[in-house]
Amino acid sequence: MNKPKVVVLGAGYGGLMTVTRLVKKIGINEADITLVNKHNYHYETTWMHEASAGTLHHDRCRYPIKDVINTSRVRFVQDTVKNINKEEKKVVLGTGEIAYDYLVVALGAVPETFGISGLKEYAFSISNIDSSRQLREHMEYQFATYNTEAEKRPERLTIVVGGAGFTGIEFLGELANRIPELCREYDIDRQQVRLICVEAAPSVLPGFDPELVDYAVNYLEGKGVEFKIGTAVKECTPDGIFVGKDDQTEEIKAGTVVWAAGVRGNPVIEESGFENMRGRVKVKPDLRVDSFDDIFVIGDCSLVINEEIDRPYPPTAQISMQQGETCATNIAALIHGKETETFKFDNKGSVASLGEHDAIGVALGKKMTGTSASMMKKIIDNRSLYLIGGPGLVLKKGKFKFF
Amino acid sequence: MNKPKVVVLGAGYGGLMTVTRLVKKIGINEADITLVNKHNYHYETTWMHEASAGTLHHDRCRYPIKDVINTSRVRFVQDTVKNINKEEKKVVLGTGEIAYDYLVVALGAVPETFGISGLKEYAFSISNIDSSRQLREHMEYQFATYNTEAEKRPERLTIVVGGAGFTGIEFLGELANRIPELCREYDIDRQQVRLICVEAAPSVLPGFDPELVDYAVNYLEGKGVEFKIGTAVKECTPDGIFVGKDDQTEEIKAGTVVWAAGVRGNPVIEESGFENMRGRVKVKPDLRVDSFDDIFVIGDCSLVINEEIDRPYPPTAQISMQQGETCATNIAALIHGKETETFKFDNKGSVASLGEHDAIGVALGKKMTGTSASMMKKIIDNRSLYLIGGPGLVLKKGKFKFF
Repeated sequence: MNKPKVVVLGAGYGGLMTVTRLVKKIGINEADITLVNKHNYHYETTWMHEASAGTLHHDRCRYPIKDVINTSRVRFVQDTVKNINKEEKKVVLGTGEIAYDYLVVALGAVPETFGISGLKEYAFSISNIDSSRQLREHMEYQFATYNTEAEKRPERLTIVVGGAGFTGIEFLGELANRIPELCREYDIDRQQVRLICVEAAPSVLPGFDPELVDYAVNYLEGKGVEFKIGTAVKECTPDGIFVGKDDQTEEIKAGTVVWAAGVRGNPVIEESGFENMRGRVKVKPDLRVDSFDDIFVIGDCSLVINEEIDRPYPPTAQISMQQGETCATNIAALIHGKETETFKFDNKGSVASLGEHDAIGVALGKKMTGTSASMMKKIIDNRSLYLIGGPGLVLKKGKFKFF
Repeated sequence: MNKPKVVVLGAGYGGLMTVTRLVKKIGINEADITLVNKHNYHYETTWMHEASAGTLHHDRCRYPIKDVINTSRVRFVQDTVKNINKEEKKVVLGTGEIAYDYLVVALGAVPETFGISGLKEYAFSISNIDSSRQLREHMEYQFATYNTEAEKRPERLTIVVGGAGFTGIEFLGELANRIPELCREYDIDRQQVRLICVEAAPSVLPGFDPELVDYAVNYLEGKGVEFKIGTAVKECTPDGIFVGKDDQTEEIKAGTVVWAAGVRGNPVIEESGFENMRGRVKVKPDLRVDSFDDIFVIGDCSLVINEEIDRPYPPTAQISMQQGETCATNIAALIHGKETETFKFDNKGSVASLGEHDAIGVALGKKMTGTSASMMKKIIDNRSLYLIGGPGLVLKKGKFKFF
């Protein structure tokens, strides 16, 4: 028995797509498949803005990995990846090592703080289940504390979101709905609460149609969000942030600072000596790595150029899942001694939610706002569940109402 | 028109009983009645251990004052009491003053920290709605943060309760039920969590029957509570507490320290120059104050001697409500030019809950444990609602299950 060992690192969108598709493309005795993940659950990265705001419970945003993999075909190892030894073809884990013949690196992203002082220490992030529920509880604690203090500190009720990209805007949309609930819960006047969005770029939601951007900004401003555009975060402190615009520096005191201004690839990429740009590896057309024909990199750790504009595609769940599918096809091809195929991103559009009942975006080639965009967003969210776990998972974790 | 002005300070158990009984004992034109309270709601002080643990939502523990007073007979003023000017017969409020002919001081208690360093700054308390929901959220935040840290800090999951009296024990009973829920919510192993009760006195629940005390201690130890009896809290720090026993000092690192080892009367008592012991005024048999025949003090600010043992009755909701009734009778008597009557405490017993389904205590002259004690506890809780707000309030806020 000398079956090739396929090791998949990460059970995010890319890793799970690879594994679930691979078992359909190869025979039972054609490979040993191992999936390694830090947690025993998969979480919906693209739903973390809701878990963070407290509008959707974090348990609704995750499911056990064993529920979606065929455990008779895939061995699941719960462990942390420390390093990839490309020469010796093995992965160093928190406890032990694992050898591979084919490796899929699908380890996702971490927040990119661009070296801004204090962000790592004092800002919260929307990255994962752990960070999201911590952020949710931190904000609740600020609200719960406000009325216990004889001398009121209104900055406890100020929330600064750094970044007006996809995550920042979606988070603000949820917060706009959540804040009135928190005010009721803790006997606080809504007028005391400030939601501030700071963005260094000259506009909100870069890459989105300007008409849609206007819709989003108007909607959020109507819900009390203050935008500070073209304004850079200079420093984060325990008391808030310092921002700069046109040589002017201003301190914004805030009980909560959330950093949502970008991501970089998992640090394992850099620590393992892959050539990379911000932790992302520029992969070959078939998703393999230059000089290492046995390693695929997909998802947020990979970098694929959009040739139309000669810039990398932004890291999204959509591209990760499509890469997972191609990656499975190509591993099967290698096992079967066939040619690998070229990955082609089929952009189905992009919809950003603005709370539960509104959204903006482009899908099916159409610009959308309001209820139809919001429904489309839920369809997209349910589609990820469907692609990985089938209709059963949609029924369990899907977003829909019976009434 | 020269109607006497009756001013009642505080809408706790004592104040609300006074007001609701007084309107029944005097005619419409016999007095102007004003009730002053910091919040527009009454809260069930004796339920705060549940709100603090998170086993009962704080909104279930409070109701609007206007729901239980006759607003055509009683003027409600939402304000803070700063000082009582006994000579000029007026009360200084946060905004303005109010004159009285008869004054009822029913301002309740605050935690007694016995001058122990750091308790005021770093320990949480179970005193009121504000402090209870802050404590609840603080503990949640500690649990939510635990898994976000690469280097785990088990002390985040250590909760120290200072005081094994009524409040401390009831809080531990609720926590014992709440902790497994928090562990599930935040993916934490129950074994990582420590619940420690520190008590300087030589026993738990002083004044309770030793058999009942043993029952409570066994029950709580079975749920994982560690008791450190005869051990004094020496100091509270941001990292935990220092305790002392037999000349040995020990540091207990803890993410949460709760101080539940006693109360003193509202500081307004001392600041207004009343003769007092720990903020409590030793009242005359008819609940009035020596040398000030127009002032009644009831509830936790008053001190009534139990002549059987020549020691003060402990401050409880039971005695406050009975005092409120006598106080109303005596104000009516003064208005009608009659003799006041002597307050006599009718001790109906005392039941301490141990979570939702267990309790210990004495009621109807019988020692009780387990389910019957737990049912009796709920009857007692509902009785306070009934006495102040009638059957409607019991239906709205009462503790019972329909199934």
